[in-house]
Parts: sequence; C-alpha cells; structure tokens
Amino acid sequence: MRKLLIVGTVAFDAIKTPFGKTDKILGGAATYIGLSAANFDVSSAVVSVVGGDFPQEHLDMLRDRKVDTSGIEIVSDGKTFFWSGKYDNDMNTRETLATELNVLESFNPIVPDNFKDAGVVMLGNLHPSVQNAVLDQLSDNPKLVVLDTMNFWMDIAMPELKEVIKKVDVITINDEEARQLSGEYSLSVAAEKIQEMGPKYVVIKKGEHGALLFHKDEVFFAPALPLREVFDPTGAGDTFAGGFSGYLAKTNDISFANMKNALIHGSNLASFCVEKFGTERMQNVSSSEISDRLSRFRSLTKYDM
Amino acid sequence: MRKLLIVGTVAFDAIKTPFGKTDKILGGAATYIGLSAANFDVSSAVVSVVGGDFPQEHLDMLRDRKVDTSGIEIVSDGKTFFWSGKYDNDMNTRETLATELNVLESFNPIVPDNFKDAGVVMLGNLHPSVQNAVLDQLSDNPKLVVLDTMNFWMDIAMPELKEVIKKVDVITINDEEARQLSGEYSLSVAAEKIQEMGPKYVVIKKGEHGALLFHKDEVFFAPALPLREVFDPTGAGDTFAGGFSGYLAKTNDISFANMKNALIHGSNLASFCVEKFGTERMQNVSSSEISDRLSRFRSLTKYDM
Repeated sequence: MRKLLIVGTVAFDAIKTPFGKTDKILGGAATYIGLSAANFDVSSAVVSVVGGDFPQEHLDMLRDRKVDTSGIEIVSDGKTFFWSGKYDNDMNTRETLATELNVLESFNPIVPDNFKDAGVVMLGNLHPSVQNAVLDQLSDNPKLVVLDTMNFWMDIAMPELKEVIKKVDVITINDEEARQLSGEYSLSVAAEKIQEMGPKYVVIKKGEHGALLFHKDEVFFAPALPLREVFDPTGAGDTFAGGFSGYLAKTNDISFANMKNALIHGSNLASFCVEKFGTERMQNVSSSEISDRLSRFRSLTKYDM
Repeated sequence: MRKLLIVGTVAFDAIKTPFGKTDKILGGAATYIGLSAANFDVSSAVVSVVGGDFPQEHLDMLRDRKVDTSGIEIVSDGKTFFWSGKYDNDMNTRETLATELNVLESFNPIVPDNFKDAGVVMLGNLHPSVQNAVLDQLSDNPKLVVLDTMNFWMDIAMPELKEVIKKVDVITINDEEARQLSGEYSLSVAAEKIQEMGPKYVVIKKGEHGALLFHKDEVFFAPALPLREVFDPTGAGDTFAGGFSGYLAKTNDISFANMKNALIHGSNLASFCVEKFGTERMQNVSSSEISDRLSRFRSLTKYDM
C-alpha cells in the first residue's frame, strides 16, 4: 500500500453555529485529514501531539480506520490543543472565541521510522516550523508534498512559512489567503506569483464557491455541491486536503489530469463534512454514499455542446 | 430565422472603476442583451425608449448587428435614462452615484407587430410593470419567457414583480437577490421557493463565482472563467442574459440539456464584456474569439475519472 504521511493538529473544538453548539469535541486538522484519506486504500500515519486529557477512544477510532497513530505524541502532564469558534448566520465568517495552544507550544514532531519514506506528505495547517521539521526528517524525496496553511501563519510567521512553501509541490489556501500571500487581487495572477515562490501547483479553496487548481498556463475548477443546509463548516478545508492527498497517494499518479480527479474527490468528501457537527459525519460516511455523491458532482458540470 | 424579443433600458452610463472613468457612454440592459444575442443567428428586436439626446450612431450600430430598433421610441423633447456608478477596488461592490429616469418615467412599451409572435422573449431589467405590459401585447404564447430583475424592484415594486414572475418560464437573478426574493439563505432552498412562484427554471448568477441553473431536482453549474483582470463589470449580467436567451432562440430547444449549453454561452460572452469599459468589447468581439474561449470553458471543468 502507498504511504501517506500527515502532520497537523489533533485537538478539542467547541463550536457554535446558528443550529446549536457543542462542548469540547474531537477536532484538529490532522484528524479531519486522516478521516478523509481513510476513504482510500492507503497506509497513513499522523504526526501530532495531544495531552493526558485526550481520550484513548479517539485514538482507537483513528486506528480502526487504519490510521497509524504511533506518531501522535502523548504528553501525559499536558493539555490538548483547544480551539473554540462561533459562526455567523451566513456560515461564511467565523469568530475565534478561544485558542489554547497547550502541548502544541513546545511540540517537536517525530516522524515514525516506517513513514520516513512516505510517497505523499500532507502538511496540514500548523506552525510552519513544525511543517519544516517534518520535511527535514524524511529519508527519501517524497513523490509529492502538499501544504495547507492559513492567514494566521502569514500574520505571525511569514519568513518560516515562505521557507516551507519553497519546498512543497502543492499549496492549498483559500482565496483571501492567496491574495494576502501574493499581494494580488486577481486569483489568476495570485496563483502565478505563488508558483514563483516554489509550489508547481496552487489550489485555491473558495468554500461554497468551489476550488481552483492552477499549474503553469492550465487551470481547472471543481465546483462545490449546492447544499440545502450547511450545519458546521469546521474541518471542511482539512477534509478537502485529506481527500486530495489521499486520492493522489492511492493512485500514485501526480499528473495534472489526475490532480483534477483529486480535487473532485476532495470537494466531494468536504461536502459530507459540513453536514454534522465536528467529525461526526466523516466517522460514518459510507463508500456507497461517497460514490453516489460523486455522480452528482459529475452531472453538476457536465454538458454536451 | 427565430425571433427574439428584448425589452430593457437603452441608456447612458458614467462609470468609475479603479482603472479609470468614463463620461456618458452607451449602456442599458437591452443594449447589452442585444449585442450579446447578435452573436447568434437570430432575428431580434429591442423595445425601449430614449430621448432626443440619444445619438443616431448608437441605433445604427445596433441595426448593423441585425437588431431591429423600430421598437425603440424616441421622445425628442425628453432626455435618455442616465445611470452613474462607482466600483470598489474588489469590483464586487458598486455604489450608485446618480440615477436619472428621464424618459423612462412615463414609458409605455409598444411591441412591433412583426415581433408579437416572437418565440423567445427576454424581459431585461426594468420596472416590472413595463415587463408585464410587454407580455400583454403578445399574440401567440411565446415558447419561452426569460425575466431578469434586481433587488431595486424587490424594494420598491414587489407586488408588480411577483405578478410578472408568475408568468415567466426562467428567472435570472444574483445570489443576494435570490435570498431576498425567497427569504432563504441556502441557494438550493431559495431556488425551490422561487420555482413555486412561477418560473420552472431558476438561474442564480454569482458573478466571478459562476452561475447555477435549477429545475425541479436537477441542478447545473456553469463556472466563470478566472480572468487576469476585470476592467468594468457593468453589463455582465445583461450580456449573460443575452447569450442565454439568444442561444435558446437560435436552437429552438428549451430542454434542460440545452439550457445548460445556453448557460455556458451566456457565461462565455459575459467574460468578454468585462474586459473593457461599457459595450466596447461586445461591439468588436469576433466569432473566432468566442469559439476559442468556449474551449477554455470546456477544459475548465472537464475531467475523466
């Protein structure tokens, strides 16, 4: 089986949406990425850190889905990273109510020996120094390195972020972040500038408006499925990244043509994620539901002129 | 040749964008619709009104493109409708600086006799009472009536608007307007509610994010082409409507499958409109440019999974 190495947070989230609110529930970029990638036939491992307060059942749940958790360090006298946020009525803007870094503050990632030769590396949203430290531990040159990041790191750690951006093949960011990183308003021009920073492929996520994939003069657009209801957007971007990298790891084909398919798979899986609070939907989505919805994606943009 | 009847404003616009500004130039919904539909092999006529200040050369320009202008009333002692607006840096929000209704204030539309049996009727953005008055003059039941409108009429003439909405087959509005009209945030639910008001087809325009076509349980998405530069968005929605209705008039096929194609043609033509101030680009776009860009649209969403 192809190996997919995932780095990112494993965390507690408390979420408030117009539909309700949760206490501390399972969250974190690497959790969503791992759950999403688990829908493909890949051997994946998560590199992360949690505190002594993190329930064993969550680790078991990941292991049940064939996600190797030996790279998740447990700091028994520490507390797990905690994030709390609140979504507006339109679900497009969110306010961060609390961020407690806890064990993340002094996290030194350690890549398990049997994943140092992973073919695909998915650097989930996390401090760019941690993402860099993971790349430094790889024995082989991975076939593909995908980086996800956000405006927060552009604000407080731009030099470290640019350092890691130099080394990756694909970057996934949202439209506002692409504008912030490049200083360009037009997404086409922004994608061009970002390619000059290192990544040969730029994925711009536009949430309910779909996602764009840029590579040299080529561009591909994956729509988002129009949903009757978005219950909780938390983790949708990570789920997208997990589907994208998981599919590429499984197929072992990083051509532009296959990246288009990966983009569709990512969008498809993300459309489930938002249907329930937190990871709930991703924990029980079935393969037949996934393939049914893939057909809906197909018919959404198919025409015969 | 198939007949397309167009109603809408023929006007002067003064536009300010981050790239520059114009004095009074040719504008108006019907102007853009006519220019856009002229790219198909249809016999079209515009019903509108202008003042004595309206230059003959603009009417000649439309006639050169086989647009029948005999339904454009000239009120020699009146002034042409004038609109002035200013776009923000992001080109997504605009401020209206001036609206002078002038001859529009007491406009009684008169449909030319030879267009009372038009197969396709495109009711461009205008007071819903005028749109209604045009429908009342038709001798045959048209094959398809398409209505374009905007939030302005929802604010000041909702009862008249709902009256005309009842009678049309297709409505084209933007996402915010769909939400305002339906009272629903989800575009899927909004489209469902709007179908209950009369139109069997609902087109929701999302500007740079593309357009959605809803019909019963079916939905189709036409992307917008990612452009390096948007110079002036004025008239893009009208150009879209002109491409949509012009293509349907020409092909004489109002199946859902063919409406998908019409949506792509509308998006394609709108992508040219925004490249220059006002109608400039639409006055000189060539058929080879149009077909070249259609291929770019195709590859934008095409994948083989």
